[in-house]
Amino acid sequence: MSTSTVTVTGMTCGHCVSSVREQIGNIDGVTAVDVDLTSGRVTINSHEPLERSAIQNAVEEAGYQLAE
Amino acid sequence: MSTSTVTVTGMTCGHCVSSVREQIGNIDGVTAVDVDLTSGRVTINSHEPLERSAIQNAVEEAGYQLAE
Repeated sequence: MSTSTVTVTGMTCGHCVSSVREQIGNIDGVTAVDVDLTSGRVTINSHEPLERSAIQNAVEEAGYQLAE
Repeated sequence: MSTSTVTVTGMTCGHCVSSVREQIGNIDGVTAVDVDLTSGRVTINSHEPLERSAIQNAVEEAGYQLAE
């Protein structure tokens, strides 16, 4: 079990949160996604450690960006 | 044919716009809904004049409010 934490920019409402959660949740091996709208903080639990690029792709697919 | 214009508060992104458009589009007789995110202005075309209360209910169903 592994936990990844990233910060996503550009989310403005609950719909944005849902989009990000859904796209990250589609990554293979992800078991839980917690998104905090105010801070942009996203905490991801997965069976194996995730590549940052996989998270980035999912976030961009949802229409948002990772903070540096 | 009738046109109604209202102002909706609280929309922050394209998802919000979609929700409002969808709910208002479900009102009987509505033929077109144009939502401007920046101003909150919503223009609705319908076969018959709409009750403001019907529009208000749809907007609240989407999770937003009409401006006074």
